[in-house]
Amino acid sequence: MSQESSYSEGDLRNTGMRLKHDREWDYELDRIAEAIEERDADTVGLQFPEGLKRRAPRVADDIRELVAERDLTDDVRVLISGQPCYGACDLDTYLMKRSDVFVHFGHSPMKETDKVIYVPLFSNVDVLPIIDEALDELAPPAEHGSIGLVTTAQHMNRFDEMCETLSAEGYDVETRRGDDRLTHEGQVLGCNYASADVDAAQVLYVGGGKFHPLGLAMEHPDKRVVIADPVNNVVTVADTEKFVKQRYASVHKAMDAETWGVIFCTKIGQGRWEEADRILDDNDDAYLITLDEVTPDRLRNFDVDAFVNTGCPRITTDDGPRFHKPMLTPGEYDAAVGNKPLSDIGFDTFHGTW
Amino acid sequence: MSQESSYSEGDLRNTGMRLKHDREWDYELDRIAEAIEERDADTVGLQFPEGLKRRAPRVADDIRELVAERDLTDDVRVLISGQPCYGACDLDTYLMKRSDVFVHFGHSPMKETDKVIYVPLFSNVDVLPIIDEALDELAPPAEHGSIGLVTTAQHMNRFDEMCETLSAEGYDVETRRGDDRLTHEGQVLGCNYASADVDAAQVLYVGGGKFHPLGLAMEHPDKRVVIADPVNNVVTVADTEKFVKQRYASVHKAMDAETWGVIFCTKIGQGRWEEADRILDDNDDAYLITLDEVTPDRLRNFDVDAFVNTGCPRITTDDGPRFHKPMLTPGEYDAAVGNKPLSDIGFDTFHGTW
Repeated sequence: MSQESSYSEGDLRNTGMRLKHDREWDYELDRIAEAIEERDADTVGLQFPEGLKRRAPRVADDIRELVAERDLTDDVRVLISGQPCYGACDLDTYLMKRSDVFVHFGHSPMKETDKVIYVPLFSNVDVLPIIDEALDELAPPAEHGSIGLVTTAQHMNRFDEMCETLSAEGYDVETRRGDDRLTHEGQVLGCNYASADVDAAQVLYVGGGKFHPLGLAMEHPDKRVVIADPVNNVVTVADTEKFVKQRYASVHKAMDAETWGVIFCTKIGQGRWEEADRILDDNDDAYLITLDEVTPDRLRNFDVDAFVNTGCPRITTDDGPRFHKPMLTPGEYDAAVGNKPLSDIGFDTFHGTW
Repeated sequence: MSQESSYSEGDLRNTGMRLKHDREWDYELDRIAEAIEERDADTVGLQFPEGLKRRAPRVADDIRELVAERDLTDDVRVLISGQPCYGACDLDTYLMKRSDVFVHFGHSPMKETDKVIYVPLFSNVDVLPIIDEALDELAPPAEHGSIGLVTTAQHMNRFDEMCETLSAEGYDVETRRGDDRLTHEGQVLGCNYASADVDAAQVLYVGGGKFHPLGLAMEHPDKRVVIADPVNNVVTVADTEKFVKQRYASVHKAMDAETWGVIFCTKIGQGRWEEADRILDDNDDAYLITLDEVTPDRLRNFDVDAFVNTGCPRITTDDGPRFHKPMLTPGEYDAAVGNKPLSDIGFDTFHGTW
């Protein structure tokens, strides 16, 4: 894990470029070609998450070649989104509106719409060896008969295999599709762990990164969360202690704040107007700031004592220390101003689509 | 000028925070209040340039107080744009569409529209003392009877005084409103110097920064450009040599490029689709990348050999060295690929609105 040292804990933004296993992706070019032909498209918009942007020129070449080979349409202009992209919450709506065919790679749909072709880019990493290893960390079926199972969109293509493996070991595998923010049964997002709301004292999380299992353990403090990371070949148990301490420290720092910047994120899947509105109603010294990318540079010129971020919780918790003033989640804001006890703060989660 | 050392030459983004003179601004609150009352507004959107964002909370307070005092409307929600803003080309269209009253501070209109209240925030710095000093650098009326006069939006409120002063010295002052990208006679923008297309061998530029007079001198190589900076109290003569050398170096570096990223900026006043489209037609190894903020971080994941920026020329020339690959203007691209001789490259300018 030493190559991760320059990244903050849970920072998933660049993991795609630092994978130990080589991976091949299925860009589903045939499905894209069909849409181009059907719509007689002049423009095709492509959006990739950060770790896959370097593949964009080659995918554009492949699409142009297919169009020419199959004579699908006269000519097609491929537009690549240069906007940062960290999830299905983060559609490039500008490019979407201006493309005849718009393809979003690397995430599963947060909401189905004819306007977007979602290409999930499932991992082809074998998950069974690491599940085998994880069995040593799990309480055996004789002790806990039930086990919850969750994974990320990337590994959803192996979900049935995962279930079967655990069943074969004698577990009752408890799974569910959390809510309508999630596409699949057993899927979790960095901001939504409702798929783990199952009747089991232990949960196996299959996937990479540190943020997802941390959120999972924070959201389900009554469950033991075992992490099987098939990409880095590591099994660990989620530990929330350090995270909780960091969050308490941020809340404490913000307790003296007289003025607050309340951030409303304008990304399509990250807007929580009710939360922002509630805080503004609660506090005359709170100022509403609207923006898409929430970065330290962009907020540096705002002269307030603390910020509350109603957008992506990963920004608040992972990037928090990089901002010039304390950055809290809405729940943490309530603790800082005394609306609720500090012990009541939990993990910030999102529900619903847009 | 020593406090400017950490900024690259021509970097105007933070000058508002580093001014030697104290300045008071007229936020035109009465005009905003009238619009709130007329439209019975529920939401007021405010957009400030970077250097004035720190004033946003106080302006929001003033607006809320006025609304309450004058009982203009039941209640008003003030939304402050957190998007970076460097010009009138850079309207926060998301916030504009979602506000009953939308105010853009610090720039003059690039295009008049009922949707936007432009508050120019004229400087109250006296310009006459520095014009007096500049007379020593200008050729006297006996030698050159005509003089061109240009300034930035910030000092437009003193333009008549400037003209009168020069006339009183015996000059024929030549002024014009360049084109429809500009609001005022005699106004220049970082991307448009058409107001200096006058019949005079010397031009007096009154204003701060280094980028504007540099662009002016590049765009009008036949004229001597004298710079009277009323904020820093300095008179200089524009020198393009260093700038030209830097640009030649960038073009040389890009001459070996096999693949190109062509940037189309999605900001409302920075889109030059024809330029982008022309380059894509010209080059099969050029890939179109669409984004709003053009920053080194955002382009780092794109694996091409060089970039052409069809958006703001200041980004290309001032920030150019910070990108991981050479960053050229459209004209420089043509020189790099051999479409035209290197000696033909000029300053990249914008014309028209949106």
